[in-house]
Amino acid sequence: MTPSFELDPRLANDTHFVGDLGLSRVLLMDDTRFPWLVLVPRKPGLVEVTDLDEFETATLMTEVRLAAKTIKTIAGYDKLNVGILGNFVAQLHIHVVGRRSIDDAWPRPVWGAGGTRRPYDSRLRDTRIAQIKSEMRLYA
Amino acid sequence: MTPSFELDPRLANDTHFVGDLGLSRVLLMDDTRFPWLVLVPRKPGLVEVTDLDEFETATLMTEVRLAAKTIKTIAGYDKLNVGILGNFVAQLHIHVVGRRSIDDAWPRPVWGAGGTRRPYDSRLRDTRIAQIKSEMRLYA
Repeated sequence: MTPSFELDPRLANDTHFVGDLGLSRVLLMDDTRFPWLVLVPRKPGLVEVTDLDEFETATLMTEVRLAAKTIKTIAGYDKLNVGILGNFVAQLHIHVVGRRSIDDAWPRPVWGAGGTRRPYDSRLRDTRIAQIKSEMRLYA
Repeated sequence: MTPSFELDPRLANDTHFVGDLGLSRVLLMDDTRFPWLVLVPRKPGLVEVTDLDEFETATLMTEVRLAAKTIKTIAGYDKLNVGILGNFVAQLHIHVVGRRSIDDAWPRPVWGAGGTRRPYDSRLRDTRIAQIKSEMRLYA
């Protein structure tokens, strides 16, 4: 039996589900301080980005570009930050974050920036998710 | 006249030159606390990873994989960290860092981790650069 994809519970806990692209699950980080998407390739057992084959890597990068374009359109940014860390959560996940030179962590990275996360209220969350799905052509 | 590639002086100042791959210049971060390579695509005017076209992106990711493999071989790591930030230096550059669960910044990111950089002495620097060039088949 092929093992199935399961999202790490810590990633699930920190984010809202948006939808599934060809390779990756799209999650919205539950922090209104930054427009921040997380892509999780839906293949069991992935830890490092080097675990992806060449085709999957190309697909991932296409999805990173789409995530960046989506953030640009719905929130704008001065600088894009992309991070693949996994020091806390081993499951391969890619952070795509729009940064503003006036945001709470600038110019430091958002990872380990400290400060207090500001969760979405349900109305803003639903609006954001709808915007992201529309930009990403995610109709599921 | 086509503008030529020039390395940002801050990147040059923080690193040692290793060599040039097909797309990227390879730099060794001058900090012995972490096995840390920086890839700088040699195309003038790049800021965001989304400024690369599809072919260049695929090439970059091949070079990221090679950088990771090189770090794995010469230093080993428990976790690979890849970061594309550019909040301080706008010129597009990609950090590829081997992390150990006992390193000075773990589990925080190396970017903005604080602490004091430990520069290479000339002998260790030359050894490291030779190892990297050998692993990357950089004979120039």
